Amino acid sequence: MIPRAVILAIGDELLLGRTQDTNTAYLARWCQDHGIRVVRSAILGDDEAQMVAAMAAAAAEADLVLITGGLGPTRDDRTRHALAAAAGVPLRQSASAWKQIQAYYGRVRPGEAVPESNRRQALTPRGAQLLRNDRGTAPGLAVAVAESWLVALPGVPVEMYAMLERLAPRLATWFPQHRIPVVQELHLCGLGESAVQDQLGDLLEGDGRLSVGITAHEAGHITIRVVGSASAGRRRLAACAALLGPWVLPEAGVVPSLVHVLRRRGLTISAAESCTCGQVAALLGAVPGVSAVLEESLITYANQAKIRYLGVSDWLIEQNGVVSEACAQAMAEGMRLRSGADLAVATTGIAGPDGGTRAKPVGSVWIAVASRQGLSTRCLQLHGDRQRIQRRAAIAALRLAWEHVRRPARTPNP
Amino acid sequence: MIPRAVILAIGDELLLGRTQDTNTAYLARWCQDHGIRVVRSAILGDDEAQMVAAMAAAAAEADLVLITGGLGPTRDDRTRHALAAAAGVPLRQSASAWKQIQAYYGRVRPGEAVPESNRRQALTPRGAQLLRNDRGTAPGLAVAVAESWLVALPGVPVEMYAMLERLAPRLATWFPQHRIPVVQELHLCGLGESAVQDQLGDLLEGDGRLSVGITAHEAGHITIRVVGSASAGRRRLAACAALLGPWVLPEAGVVPSLVHVLRRRGLTISAAESCTCGQVAALLGAVPGVSAVLEESLITYANQAKIRYLGVSDWLIEQNGVVSEACAQAMAEGMRLRSGADLAVATTGIAGPDGGTRAKPVGSVWIAVASRQGLSTRCLQLHGDRQRIQRRAAIAALRLAWEHVRRPARTPNP
Repeated sequence: MIPRAVILAIGDELLLGRTQDTNTAYLARWCQDHGIRVVRSAILGDDEAQMVAAMAAAAAEADLVLITGGLGPTRDDRTRHALAAAAGVPLRQSASAWKQIQAYYGRVRPGEAVPESNRRQALTPRGAQLLRNDRGTAPGLAVAVAESWLVALPGVPVEMYAMLERLAPRLATWFPQHRIPVVQELHLCGLGESAVQDQLGDLLEGDGRLSVGITAHEAGHITIRVVGSASAGRRRLAACAALLGPWVLPEAGVVPSLVHVLRRRGLTISAAESCTCGQVAALLGAVPGVSAVLEESLITYANQAKIRYLGVSDWLIEQNGVVSEACAQAMAEGMRLRSGADLAVATTGIAGPDGGTRAKPVGSVWIAVASRQGLSTRCLQLHGDRQRIQRRAAIAALRLAWEHVRRPARTPNP
Repeated sequence: MIPRAVILAIGDELLLGRTQDTNTAYLARWCQDHGIRVVRSAILGDDEAQMVAAMAAAAAEADLVLITGGLGPTRDDRTRHALAAAAGVPLRQSASAWKQIQAYYGRVRPGEAVPESNRRQALTPRGAQLLRNDRGTAPGLAVAVAESWLVALPGVPVEMYAMLERLAPRLATWFPQHRIPVVQELHLCGLGESAVQDQLGDLLEGDGRLSVGITAHEAGHITIRVVGSASAGRRRLAACAALLGPWVLPEAGVVPSLVHVLRRRGLTISAAESCTCGQVAALLGAVPGVSAVLEESLITYANQAKIRYLGVSDWLIEQNGVVSEACAQAMAEGMRLRSGADLAVATTGIAGPDGGTRAKPVGSVWIAVASRQGLSTRCLQLHGDRQRIQRRAAIAALRLAWEHVRRPARTPNP
């Protein structure tokens, strides 16, 4: 039996969109790690009647209802009231909850009296189990309602994270029959989502033991994810990998895969960026351990900088324009020689919103990669606003670098 | 009448917590800006029956149901099927949807045939209005169900953002009684949120004609936002600006404000980045028109690069360490002299996850700004993962640059 969970995040500020709810995703991952299937989640405002209805509906539908938020000391925090109403039990001051609050307060503010407003946080539905809060005043609450466990956790993320560690050991008691499913992923680069679909066909269909999903990431890769039996999942992904071998990434993303392979081969990389203006370096720099492969990188935004740093000749720019294959190649090759890096990436293009022409509209970008094996170049025609064009050009340049290093050394590019 | 909305985000990956749902918060903000009240939101998996039930329940509860995700070309994308079922109409191939898909494909991949799997994206509930997708293949769908409008939007954020702009004009037709409020903003930098609160007091209170909000942005500025009557909003913001004049930004953000002021004064800027690894340049580069102020920028990640490009002496690094005020100053001043830029920004620190020590833990960062007027430096102790530390350090460096240029020239820094 796989326990089913519903997640409820409480707070008006979440419904105004001013605060990004990250607790739901954290709770969802926690559930997955503990073999619990989240069937849905919801965000509710600080409205007690709405909360009671949502808690009761969730209890009828799920084995575990994880509720986050609304346990604060102010009057708009109504989660414990709603919890008591949903369980049909009275809410009353709990002496042990008050002791926990006093103990926490004594630890962080020795000698100070606990403010009276915190007494609200000792209000507890009759029969509730308390969950100790190591990072704040409000204890968590677990209440059995019908066949379900309703658990109220604080909305402050660090308080919630710590409390989940105290919650985990109770799962074995609450769900003794329960077996843990396994999540496995395969990451691909170089094929579109529809091409993957066309090639894999039924391999993307779920069955009783396995659910299968496919996600295209803005960062340039595609993930196939299987959830269920470990062995069935392994076999399924192996079958996918057998069909799509050349496109399989060693890490969860193009840039981490590139850094991984460069590290393993003892190679270094650098970039000479024009239109991407630092985004290639920033993408590389986000990967832990990049210092082994990245020593320096240049942003040569003005033509003079391309000439001075990279040795691009002024007549080359004059003849071909700065947004050209020749210029991208000269930048990459100039950067490689100048920096001594094994691999150099270059970008030159028109990110907009101004600067486009009929022949080279906004979004025209040339990217190039140089190594001792030769040069790879590509022309892109990107759409969207300036930031999107820059980001996609940077991702494309690193994808080209990935393809360049992945290629066997015996087939150099002319 | 204030229309009520429910937001439904669709996708197994969201319930597994592997992908952080940011669309809900974006949609919630969009609703607020258009005078629509969000009463709740939910995340659902790729389960058609569950979607149909949720759509029907939401339609019974709200005037507008915004659905995001599940419009992809693969078989696990079931939003359009559920929408048809919830509306009680058949799903069929739409010739105009197919034309839109072909037109988009022709634009991004000229000469290529649209893959067969994309035909699924032309499936449309009978009677649905199409919403053009400027950034991807799947058209959006709007269907009237009972008293409610159900709108299905793509899950890919950029596609959704662009489609919302096409949706906005329909609100006046759908909700003719509804007065769309006017949103006006004032942007500040250099004061904390509580200081703003203390100084403005009642000016931050809403009334019948105006709601007032204050938001601290990760990008380093604070926004006061008034929503409601245009004239009342204008008056309110003028009163705020009168009290907080020195901290008011000319543009919506520190970096655009910095570029704005540099352009106006005919000044140039460059950066020498270590731990931020291109993020300072990328933040500058994201601002349209930056080419007037940014000619070049360097990423000197390795010590040798700092020595070679910036003239930082090896003994200075040996004596002070590379993460030090002296090194940050030498980098900024070296960059200023080397590049000829009027202003040079430098960053050096430990972004982690490795490399921290007891004296200089992960998150220790020195930032510096050099100009002919002198040097400004600041020591940061940042928290979080590598990407967060890099991003916050880059933002702090550009805030320091903003404070440096904003300062009247007659009070040079020692």
